Amino acid sequence: MSGAEVDPVTLARAAWSRVAEPGDLTAGAVIAALGPVDALAWLRDAARAGDSQRGAGGPVVGIDPVDLFDDGADHHPAGRADDRAGGLGGASRRRLAAAVGRWAPRLEGLDPLRELRVLARLGGVVVHPGTPGWPTALADLGPAAPPCLWVRGDAAVDAAVARSVALVGSRAATAYGEHVAAELAAGVADRGFTVVSGGAYGVDAAAHRGAIAGGGRTVVFLAGGVDRPYPAGNAALLARVLETGGSVVSEVPPGSVPSRTRFLQRNRLIAAAAVATVVVEAAWRSGALNTAGHAAGLLRPVGAVPGPVTSMASAGCHRLLREGVAVCVTDAGEVAELAGAGADLAPARAEAAAEVDGLGLAARQVLDALPVRRAAGTDSLARAAGLSIAQVNAALGPLELAGLAERDGPGWRRRARAARP
Amino acid sequence: MSGAEVDPVTLARAAWSRVAEPGDLTAGAVIAALGPVDALAWLRDAARAGDSQRGAGGPVVGIDPVDLFDDGADHHPAGRADDRAGGLGGASRRRLAAAVGRWAPRLEGLDPLRELRVLARLGGVVVHPGTPGWPTALADLGPAAPPCLWVRGDAAVDAAVARSVALVGSRAATAYGEHVAAELAAGVADRGFTVVSGGAYGVDAAAHRGAIAGGGRTVVFLAGGVDRPYPAGNAALLARVLETGGSVVSEVPPGSVPSRTRFLQRNRLIAAAAVATVVVEAAWRSGALNTAGHAAGLLRPVGAVPGPVTSMASAGCHRLLREGVAVCVTDAGEVAELAGAGADLAPARAEAAAEVDGLGLAARQVLDALPVRRAAGTDSLARAAGLSIAQVNAALGPLELAGLAERDGPGWRRRARAARP
Repeated sequence: MSGAEVDPVTLARAAWSRVAEPGDLTAGAVIAALGPVDALAWLRDAARAGDSQRGAGGPVVGIDPVDLFDDGADHHPAGRADDRAGGLGGASRRRLAAAVGRWAPRLEGLDPLRELRVLARLGGVVVHPGTPGWPTALADLGPAAPPCLWVRGDAAVDAAVARSVALVGSRAATAYGEHVAAELAAGVADRGFTVVSGGAYGVDAAAHRGAIAGGGRTVVFLAGGVDRPYPAGNAALLARVLETGGSVVSEVPPGSVPSRTRFLQRNRLIAAAAVATVVVEAAWRSGALNTAGHAAGLLRPVGAVPGPVTSMASAGCHRLLREGVAVCVTDAGEVAELAGAGADLAPARAEAAAEVDGLGLAARQVLDALPVRRAAGTDSLARAAGLSIAQVNAALGPLELAGLAERDGPGWRRRARAARP
Repeated sequence: MSGAEVDPVTLARAAWSRVAEPGDLTAGAVIAALGPVDALAWLRDAARAGDSQRGAGGPVVGIDPVDLFDDGADHHPAGRADDRAGGLGGASRRRLAAAVGRWAPRLEGLDPLRELRVLARLGGVVVHPGTPGWPTALADLGPAAPPCLWVRGDAAVDAAVARSVALVGSRAATAYGEHVAAELAAGVADRGFTVVSGGAYGVDAAAHRGAIAGGGRTVVFLAGGVDRPYPAGNAALLARVLETGGSVVSEVPPGSVPSRTRFLQRNRLIAAAAVATVVVEAAWRSGALNTAGHAAGLLRPVGAVPGPVTSMASAGCHRLLREGVAVCVTDAGEVAELAGAGADLAPARAEAAAEVDGLGLAARQVLDALPVRRAAGTDSLARAAGLSIAQVNAALGPLELAGLAERDGPGWRRRARAARP
C-alpha cells in the first residue's frame, strides 16, 4: 500500500482518529465544518501559530473559526450572544485554542498511512461516512460520532447492525449471567439479529460466543486498536468472530491502548450502532449501565434482564428497571421484540390450560362445591356454592360434558376430567 | 353469649356473610341501601314471596327495589335509561330476583348467633363498619366490601393495617422465593410495617414467619372460616401469629370451607387492606397475580421481586414488571418506600467509592496514561492522554495529592492510592 492508493479523505479521517480522543466534540465540529482534509490542514497551521505565539495570549487559530460553529453544536449558549456581536465569543475561542493545545502534541510523528498499512496487513479496512460499510446509525451521535472506524473482518458494518441488538454486562459475571447472555444471543442470532458487544470477559464474551453458537453474526467494538486483542484471554474468541463472518471494530487506530475513558467512549458506539441495548447482568456500578444510559439518551430501546435480588451482580439491572430506564426482558423473544420490527413481537406464552378454563363462574362454583366421595343433591350444592337451584342445574350439564361431574343416584359428585381422545 | 348480648346490626351482618358469597355485588348494594337488618328482613320476605310465586314469572321482590340502586353501583348502564323512565328496569329486577334465588337456599338453618358463639369460644370477634377495629380501607371495594370480618387475635385490624404491606406469592415457592419473602417481611416488620398475607404454603408462610422473626405483627386473611386453619400444615404458624399479637381474619363465618372462588375473593381483601402489595415469587399463572391485579385496580402501589429468568417460579413477577403493573423491588427498604410515607424513602446505596471519584475528566485521563513502572515526561503523557501539556501539568497536582501519582526524576509514574490515615 502506497500513499497514492489511499484517498486523502480516508487518510485525513484516519489521522483525526489518532489526533483527537474518542468523543472529542470539538474535533467533530471542526471536521463537520471544514471537512476532514481541510480541518487537518487548519490544525497544522493553528498548531504552528500556537507554537510561535505561545505565551502571547493572542488567538492561536489562523482562520476565522466562526465558520466552524455555524451549527452551534459545540459552544456554550453564552457564545451565541458574542456571535451576534459579529465574531466568535471569547469562550469559544478559548475552547478552540484548548483543543489545538491537546491535539498538537499528537501531530508529532503522525503517520496514518503506516497505521492503514498495519490494518491492511490484518485484512482490515477503514470505513467512514464516505464509504459503503459505514453504520449510518452513528450519525445520531452528532459531533461525538467518530471520524472513522477501523474494521477487521466483515467491512459491511452498516448491514451487520441494521438488525442488531447489543448484549452487554459485567466482566465479573456469574454463571447465571453468562448462561443467560449466551442463551439470549443464540436466540436472537437464530432470529437473524447481529449481536453487538464489547469483547470483554463475562457477559460480553458469552454474548459473542452465543451468537456464533446460534449460527449468527457478531460485532465486537474494542476500546483499543483492532490489532491488539483485549483482553488477551479473549484473543481466540476474537479470531473466531472473524472466522464466522463477524467484525472487530475500533474508533482508535492500530497500536492504541485501551484506557478507562476509551472504554466509556466505546460504550457510546455500541449503544449507537445497535438497534437496542440489553443489559444482561450488571452490578450497581458497572460500565454496562453507562452503555444503557447512552442508548436511552439516543432514544434506543433499553432492556434489562432481572436476576436474583440476592445477587449483587444483578443490582444494576434492577436499578435500570426501578428507574424506568429499561424494560424487563426474560427471553430471546422479548429481546427480539425490543429490537425488532412488528413481525418480531414476542409470542404469547403458551401454557397448559387449567381444568377450569372455559367454564363460567357459576360452573366453577358448582365444581368447587361438588363432593368427591358422597354425592350431593342440587339443593345442597346450591347452598354450598351460594347459587340458586336453577343455576346449579344449568351448571351441571356443562360440567358433566367436560367430564368433571357425574350423576350418582339422585345426586352428583365430582370426577377427574377424562383423558382427551 | 345469649342473643340479647349481640346487637342486631352485628347479627344481621354475620348472617349476610353466610347468605351471600364473598364479593357478591348485589348483596353489597342491598345492604348499603337498606342497612343490614332491614336488608335481611326484606330478603326473608322476598324469599317467601318467591316461594309462593315460583314459576309465575312475576316480580319476587316485596318492596320497590328502585331505592336500592340509587348509587347505581350494581346495575348495568342500560338500566339507567329504565330508571329515567320511572322505575327499575327489567334487567335489574331480574338481577335482584336471581340474587334472591341464590341467597334463599341459605336462609334455611341460618343461625348467625351460633356462629358468633363459635367465634367467641375461640376468643374472636366480628368487626364491621360500626365497630372500631374495622379496616376502613376496605370501603374502597365499594359494594364488593364484605359485610363484616370474623377476627381471631388482635381485633384492631384497622390499626394493624394502617402501616402495612401485603407480601404474596406462590404456594410452590422455591427456596429463593421463601428466603426473599422472609427477609423482606423481617425488614419491613423492623420498620414498623404489618405484614399482610394469605397464610398459604410457600411465600405466604415465609412472609408471616419473617414478620414474626422481625419482631413485627402479621395479619392472615383466610379463604375459609377462622376456626379451620388452612392449610392444616400451617396450623402451628397461625397459632404463632395469634400468640405474637397478630390477627387471623376471614369474611366467611366459622365452619366455612375455602373454595377456588373464595380464594380469589379473599385476594381482594388482602389487596384492599394493605397499603401496598408486593409479589415475591409467582409463576405465569398464579393467584398472586390476581391479588396484584386487585391492588392495581384499587390504585394501591404494586411491587414485584425479580428472580432468575431461568426460574419459571418468577415468570409472573417479570410479567408484572414487563406490563408496567408493578415496580421492581429488591430489598426491604424499597418495599418500605413503596408502602410508606415520605420518611420511608429507600436510602441511596452506599457503595465503596471508586478510586477515581472526585477526579476531573482530565485527571482521569492522565491517571490512565501514567505508566506504572518507567516514569514518563509531561510531553509523552500529553500525547498518550490526548491533552495539552498545560492540562497534564494541572492534573498532576491533584493526582499527587490523592496519592495516585508520584515524581520519579524528571517524569511521573502511577502509584497505588496511599492508605487513608
